[in-house]
Amino acid sequence: MTSSLTINEGKPIRCKAAVCRKAGEALVIEEIQVDPPQAYEVRIKILCTSLCHTDLTFWKLDSGPAARFPRILGHEAVGVVESIGENVDGFKQGDVVLPVFHPQCEDCKDCKSSKSNWCARFADDFLSNTRRYGMASRFKDSTGEDIHHFIFVSSFSEYTVVDIAHLVKISPEIPVDKAALLGCGVSTGVGAAWKVADVEEGSTVAIFGLGAVGLAVAEGARLRGASKIIGVDLNPDKFEIGKRFGITDFVNPALYKEKTISEVVKEMTKGGVDYSFECIGLASLMEEAFNSTRTGSGKTVILGMEKYKLPVSLGSYDLLRGRTICGTLFGGLKPKLDIPILVDRYLKKELNLDGFITHELSFEEINKAFNLSMEGNSIRCVLWMDK
Amino acid sequence: MTSSLTINEGKPIRCKAAVCRKAGEALVIEEIQVDPPQAYEVRIKILCTSLCHTDLTFWKLDSGPAARFPRILGHEAVGVVESIGENVDGFKQGDVVLPVFHPQCEDCKDCKSSKSNWCARFADDFLSNTRRYGMASRFKDSTGEDIHHFIFVSSFSEYTVVDIAHLVKISPEIPVDKAALLGCGVSTGVGAAWKVADVEEGSTVAIFGLGAVGLAVAEGARLRGASKIIGVDLNPDKFEIGKRFGITDFVNPALYKEKTISEVVKEMTKGGVDYSFECIGLASLMEEAFNSTRTGSGKTVILGMEKYKLPVSLGSYDLLRGRTICGTLFGGLKPKLDIPILVDRYLKKELNLDGFITHELSFEEINKAFNLSMEGNSIRCVLWMDK
Repeated sequence: MTSSLTINEGKPIRCKAAVCRKAGEALVIEEIQVDPPQAYEVRIKILCTSLCHTDLTFWKLDSGPAARFPRILGHEAVGVVESIGENVDGFKQGDVVLPVFHPQCEDCKDCKSSKSNWCARFADDFLSNTRRYGMASRFKDSTGEDIHHFIFVSSFSEYTVVDIAHLVKISPEIPVDKAALLGCGVSTGVGAAWKVADVEEGSTVAIFGLGAVGLAVAEGARLRGASKIIGVDLNPDKFEIGKRFGITDFVNPALYKEKTISEVVKEMTKGGVDYSFECIGLASLMEEAFNSTRTGSGKTVILGMEKYKLPVSLGSYDLLRGRTICGTLFGGLKPKLDIPILVDRYLKKELNLDGFITHELSFEEINKAFNLSMEGNSIRCVLWMDK
Repeated sequence: MTSSLTINEGKPIRCKAAVCRKAGEALVIEEIQVDPPQAYEVRIKILCTSLCHTDLTFWKLDSGPAARFPRILGHEAVGVVESIGENVDGFKQGDVVLPVFHPQCEDCKDCKSSKSNWCARFADDFLSNTRRYGMASRFKDSTGEDIHHFIFVSSFSEYTVVDIAHLVKISPEIPVDKAALLGCGVSTGVGAAWKVADVEEGSTVAIFGLGAVGLAVAEGARLRGASKIIGVDLNPDKFEIGKRFGITDFVNPALYKEKTISEVVKEMTKGGVDYSFECIGLASLMEEAFNSTRTGSGKTVILGMEKYKLPVSLGSYDLLRGRTICGTLFGGLKPKLDIPILVDRYLKKELNLDGFITHELSFEEINKAFNLSMEGNSIRCVLWMDK
């Protein structure tokens, strides 16, 4: 493999990518050109990628500065290093790597603090194509036009170029499809329970929304020894699915017309849960999650991006009674530090990753994966580049 | 002293108290009767008491279930145990004690947890006269009518009866006027910086409102080694006062018509403070305090009771960027565990308590103390019972 990888070093590579030409329209498998990596960049051959709900959100987005076309989406993947640019330490050809949308420069105040995962140097910029080169792109279509990147990953391509601040070297022992899940949703959920809430043994948990992120919160809480994990979802099928990840109780809000969800959760737990998590992105549910926690020590973690950018309204006296609410991106994890820990826990058969993969398709079938996700029938669909 | 204390054991005591007969009217020094302590109760001879802003709030309150007259206010004090009821372990006649409004049963889940100071057994009830006997009172006026207690302390009396869940034995080495301050405001502020925010060395802090609680937050942050402590107050005199407690910078909101306070604080700290504290009780300032913190790890602690019971409105994306907000009563302190630690730090000349005492009066002059507080001229006025 190494010899075939090195042949293009320093030269553009021509390969296939699934290009999003217009918001909401089927992706087009095209031959594109991937430029060589510049300083601090690595060119990767993608082995497999999975589809996260954020890909769908940006695929549908048709206005604002984040709506850009043509574009290569995709941000959960595993690849192997094809070539490296200048000033790249710690990566070499043939390394198995995980690209991550959330940066870690390893050098700023926040990267050096145990209290933050918000890289002060890079994390505020979501909009550039390349981390250190602004709107410069490493992708061109057959007419020579630039194709936009997507949150510094763009894994819906046989090759991509990633900044080293967005790249994690992982053990080659882990199956790459399982590892790919750690690039976004699963890490976000597990991290929120582990690093942000710091769920403790015997505690009680409520999770609002049982998509991949919510199920991953359950998995994290299960690993931490929570005694009761209540899943809240309008889809009753999610209870059976959730049991695989430690969900012990289920609340279908559609069945409670006279009570709020927080009232139901409080009744189930004699006063409220120790930890609640909002994984959907609705201010009203963030408030219900907050109101579901117990006086004195209740903690709420917001993971969902509010769909309408609405503020969260909290009772000031409810706060005063010893409650906490916080938000987190990427589950409070520092990618380079914490993803290898999650990989290790998978290899020790502690962390369940297999259960998230409900579908596997070839890369060519990517539009089918989008349909599966929109229909709510898949937790994660893995796309194999070479199948 | 012990012999004079024991002579009334088991019998009612007649003594002087400052009785609030009607909302907002001058207190009346009357001879009252203080009944002997019942099971789990201790009768205390008050040595000195100080005036906290909460006394004024309830003195003025003229409607709702918490507005009750006649009543004996006061909840920051030190006394000496005169006699004990049945089932009282850990207290004996002559002990120097600090009554505290916030209970600690030492037996419930929360009292046994390091994550909470909200005694699950008792802390939800603010309205009873006596902790285990509901509306039963230990005070009677000269006509035999019951006088109401105030948040389980009622220290504006030569003698009072306090439940053991509200009583802390303290070292007799600390001057009692300094110790009295630890009964509410100062402990709340110091505790918020120490136990709730967990302010770390070199960090930056903004404090909204420099009353006794806000100054105590500064003192707590100073003790923890904060490098920059910004005080926010409309009274410019508070900067000089605040310097005694570690305030390094001052913002007078009246001077910034074009900018919000959070914008000013962010400019002063290159992006926001690590910790902010709201010590006034206005939702709009709670929001400004939240917006003053830095992305990734900013933490806001709410100490003020919202004056209009308004909710706090927080940007959901501001939360998602790694910010935390929480509220606390009594600074997250467990009274029996943590007050002796603060006493010890005073005795080691680390904790500044002396600076909070701006006035001393005899108990008979209590209405003058109310006036001083209303005029904003005192931080703490100590009232001596025997002077």
